[in-house]
Amino acid sequence: MEKGEEVRNKQVILRDHIEFTRHPKQSDFVVRTENTIHLEVPKGSNGVLVKNLYLSCDPYMYILMKDIKGPDIFSSYSPGSVITGYGVAKVLDSRHSNFKKGDLVCGITGWEEYSIVTKPEDLFKIDHTDIPLSYYTGILGMPGVTAYFGFHEVCAPKKGEYVFVSAAVGAVGQLVGQFAKLMGCYVVGSAGSQEKVELLKNNFGFDAAFNYKEEHDLDAALKRCFPEGIDIYFDNVGGKMLDAVLLNMRNHGRIALCGMITQYNVLERPEGVTNLMNLLYKRVRMEGFATFDYYPFYSKLLESVLPYIREGKIVYVEDVAEGLESGPSAFVGLFSSRNVGKQVVAIAHD
Amino acid sequence: MEKGEEVRNKQVILRDHIEFTRHPKQSDFVVRTENTIHLEVPKGSNGVLVKNLYLSCDPYMYILMKDIKGPDIFSSYSPGSVITGYGVAKVLDSRHSNFKKGDLVCGITGWEEYSIVTKPEDLFKIDHTDIPLSYYTGILGMPGVTAYFGFHEVCAPKKGEYVFVSAAVGAVGQLVGQFAKLMGCYVVGSAGSQEKVELLKNNFGFDAAFNYKEEHDLDAALKRCFPEGIDIYFDNVGGKMLDAVLLNMRNHGRIALCGMITQYNVLERPEGVTNLMNLLYKRVRMEGFATFDYYPFYSKLLESVLPYIREGKIVYVEDVAEGLESGPSAFVGLFSSRNVGKQVVAIAHD
Repeated sequence: MEKGEEVRNKQVILRDHIEFTRHPKQSDFVVRTENTIHLEVPKGSNGVLVKNLYLSCDPYMYILMKDIKGPDIFSSYSPGSVITGYGVAKVLDSRHSNFKKGDLVCGITGWEEYSIVTKPEDLFKIDHTDIPLSYYTGILGMPGVTAYFGFHEVCAPKKGEYVFVSAAVGAVGQLVGQFAKLMGCYVVGSAGSQEKVELLKNNFGFDAAFNYKEEHDLDAALKRCFPEGIDIYFDNVGGKMLDAVLLNMRNHGRIALCGMITQYNVLERPEGVTNLMNLLYKRVRMEGFATFDYYPFYSKLLESVLPYIREGKIVYVEDVAEGLESGPSAFVGLFSSRNVGKQVVAIAHD
Repeated sequence: MEKGEEVRNKQVILRDHIEFTRHPKQSDFVVRTENTIHLEVPKGSNGVLVKNLYLSCDPYMYILMKDIKGPDIFSSYSPGSVITGYGVAKVLDSRHSNFKKGDLVCGITGWEEYSIVTKPEDLFKIDHTDIPLSYYTGILGMPGVTAYFGFHEVCAPKKGEYVFVSAAVGAVGQLVGQFAKLMGCYVVGSAGSQEKVELLKNNFGFDAAFNYKEEHDLDAALKRCFPEGIDIYFDNVGGKMLDAVLLNMRNHGRIALCGMITQYNVLERPEGVTNLMNLLYKRVRMEGFATFDYYPFYSKLLESVLPYIREGKIVYVEDVAEGLESGPSAFVGLFSSRNVGKQVVAIAHD
């Protein structure tokens, strides 16, 4: 491709804001194929033109599909516009001094074949290319930062502690469990299918795992897995699971609130959590955290985790959907826990 | 009175365990007047015989009236037996080397005129007697430890922060508010009557206060008092107030869970708290704590607070009921917020 050449630019568009009371559907999106783009950063801009390679499907994006004026860390998608998300891309043209043609970058980009990134300051340059590039949407991207700092900083783990992780095969959960094992903790995970339970025990080295869909009594399932109780709960789901965990926390336990995917579709009247008294009885700390607070420490993640990946001490399972057209269905699948591992959309491989 | 003399020993007895679904009533107690006691520690014991002076009415005692086998920090009262609680007493006879006749002590004792304390290790000796002795059930007792360490340690306050205290005229709340003012915070309290609201503003120096019973929308009341949001919530009540506060927390806010008096009567199926998502959005830390974890640091409380009391920089309001017979009614009154300030029962003044 020549600089300035006009090429097709397929895009994923949000059709309209969605109601608060339902999950996203594939028909909430339109794949628009008729757009074109000139492969050049417009004069007067200091942006960067990228070719998108991998897009990340993250549950928080669902919140942006709604018409919310709420929490200031989010801003909704606009109906009729390209949705945005975390991704890995290659620089084709740059008018910004930090980037040049051929650089590989990760950060917020558009769900389209080519994007002009107007705030390139927010992109990270990828220096280590011996690692699969898609990992920069996962273990070396936002989920990695979330898992690494959420576990090590917010949970303040100690060797030998009892750790429970929900949505444990997910992009974040599988990492938290492996970090906990590396620290010498006893680790149990929950997931939504027998296949995932096997993955937890056989691939990720969890000490035990259960399929929450087959447990009619979550409290009993937790008591079976943790007869001594739970020191650390890394919560990726909220709702009923959180309520059951509260009944099983040990004195001075810690709960990191990372995501509440079960609650995203009922924001107006979320399920009530009824067992908070246990925070008091057991002197438990429960804390929400935001991944972006930890981006300034990203280099620490690389320093710790790159050797683990290269030595095979951490494995990372991805669920890769091929082609931008498969993006909406891949994203929607997150909410029925259809994906096995980190859900990625591959648009191009280089 | 002579050592060994047999005297009447009036007692407050729990009639029977109570159900989980109602508040305590006066008829749950019996005042027994026919008992007598020999004013002497039995031979072979290393206990201490005390004359009880002031008894403390504390909401947690309600939990002990139920037949619970739950949280290990509590053990239920036995039906037909004298109830126990925190109090101030005078030593009449001692077979324990730490105490001698005439000493003033505070700690767990019985709701009766005279008690034999069989674990005197748990009593504190009162050294500073220029302070009203009843204060050792309050500002210099369990509520003082709760307020001082709960606020300074759990809430980690900074000058200028926005602090909200519920049940703010209570034994703990009035102290938290005053500690917060001494730190240079902006402090708002809620209470259950106009009289208490005036007390908060005029006697305790709160910046603002509201009567929660006259607010049909707690969220709106909080938004009116805290247009910038809340940095610290010292929660003495739980339930609906906690849920409304969650909507108004600022980034990196802290919630100390101290009591959940509104929830003690519905333990089997407590009100659901629905706004926990805000912990996540605002990166809020919510933490339960137990006063007894801080008893080892009691001397720090004395060191800080005694000068404040002597210089009049902290005031402490008590609601003193006279006579052991008035104990049950004073205790029951806690649950309709009838008391104004720390509820004490005076059995004898020296």
